[in-house]
Amino acid sequence: MALILYELAAADPAVRFSPHCWKTRMALAHKGLNAERQPWCFTETEMIAFSGQAKVPVLVDGDEVVHDSWRIAEYLERQYPDKPALFTEKPPMPLAGFVNAWADKVLVPAIARIIMVDVHACLRPVDQAYFRASREQMYGKQLEAVVSDRDSHIRNLGKALTPLRHILQSRDFLDGAAPAYADYCVFGMFMWARCVSAIPLLEPDDPVHAWRERLLDLHDGLARSAPVATAVIAAVVTD
Amino acid sequence: MALILYELAAADPAVRFSPHCWKTRMALAHKGLNAERQPWCFTETEMIAFSGQAKVPVLVDGDEVVHDSWRIAEYLERQYPDKPALFTEKPPMPLAGFVNAWADKVLVPAIARIIMVDVHACLRPVDQAYFRASREQMYGKQLEAVVSDRDSHIRNLGKALTPLRHILQSRDFLDGAAPAYADYCVFGMFMWARCVSAIPLLEPDDPVHAWRERLLDLHDGLARSAPVATAVIAAVVTD
Repeated sequence: MALILYELAAADPAVRFSPHCWKTRMALAHKGLNAERQPWCFTETEMIAFSGQAKVPVLVDGDEVVHDSWRIAEYLERQYPDKPALFTEKPPMPLAGFVNAWADKVLVPAIARIIMVDVHACLRPVDQAYFRASREQMYGKQLEAVVSDRDSHIRNLGKALTPLRHILQSRDFLDGAAPAYADYCVFGMFMWARCVSAIPLLEPDDPVHAWRERLLDLHDGLARSAPVATAVIAAVVTD
Repeated sequence: MALILYELAAADPAVRFSPHCWKTRMALAHKGLNAERQPWCFTETEMIAFSGQAKVPVLVDGDEVVHDSWRIAEYLERQYPDKPALFTEKPPMPLAGFVNAWADKVLVPAIARIIMVDVHACLRPVDQAYFRASREQMYGKQLEAVVSDRDSHIRNLGKALTPLRHILQSRDFLDGAAPAYADYCVFGMFMWARCVSAIPLLEPDDPVHAWRERLLDLHDGLARSAPVATAVIAAVVTD
């Protein structure tokens, strides 16, 4: 039976920018699994109500409904053990879990402070209203104020990436000689930015930049060829 | 043949406070290996010149001389495969390596900004001079200025620990149900502070605090019973 993946979408439904959905997207490609990719917007709560919660990614696999990118990765590893392994550890994959927590708790907030306004710009008006209200409540300030000191936020991100940078000096991927789910946990963060924002996050001579290029090339360039918001294309052309 | 471990020592040679030596100390205990523990002070470069470099830990195992805590852990795992495993991954233990890099690159600087003056205080005068000169050059300011905004530095450490705290909400150890080298990589940082400083780094209700207690109890309370600087004992008694 076909897999269905509900992914966060922009006003242009081809643009799928959620960092967590990107983790799942890369995990499915790693396993060689195809999924019907269903676009879902922030305010479409009814569409995924069957999952018993309100966030994507949601994966439907026949009778199984799994939400939360980490739980989906666990599910895929358990359900498709004959496909390439996502994890180099045994369950509960504790160290990949730490990398995932590091990406979610350190990199998400660091990148959000850079691209929050770009995320807002690519949404449908009804989702923009939801996004602005919920994020401005979270930060206690206007979105434009959150991202105002851009250079400082980019420096903070560069500093936050220090452990990854150190590791990538001695190997090609975070999980060793070949990429695995730990790599996708971090790479999803960069795809989030790539899909909605033209702001360069990394210097070209940063080992993290070279690693990101390797990830962009994986699975026949799946991530490199992913649609990005028109504002991103326009900005790149203008530069 | 007996193992010999060269460890950084304070003016009181019983006080062994290096975070990296603590990683090795816990690794040896985990493997059930005994080592003759040789105190070494910052300025005693001649004593470990045989290792071809100037830092501890240095492990001597018969004809083998290994330096650098990570390389020592790799060596112990390779050389003593029948003893309890330090790693739940296969070589090159990439994700434990990431945890180690995170501890070294994020936690070391965060804790240093809190305890730098306490480290200085426990050294022999000759080592104090070396330590002050080298660290003040590194920071570009006096040691006392480095640690001056203590509350802010403690808050920063608490924030830096967010990914670990998140992980410890669902399990007892970073590496899963049982401790392994990834745990020791982080725990070494706390032993560094414990040996030289009475400043509390963690709130009692922090899951990281409970995890640290579990690590202090391991291997018959090896870490809990380790000698600490007299200034630490005095401060605790006074409180």
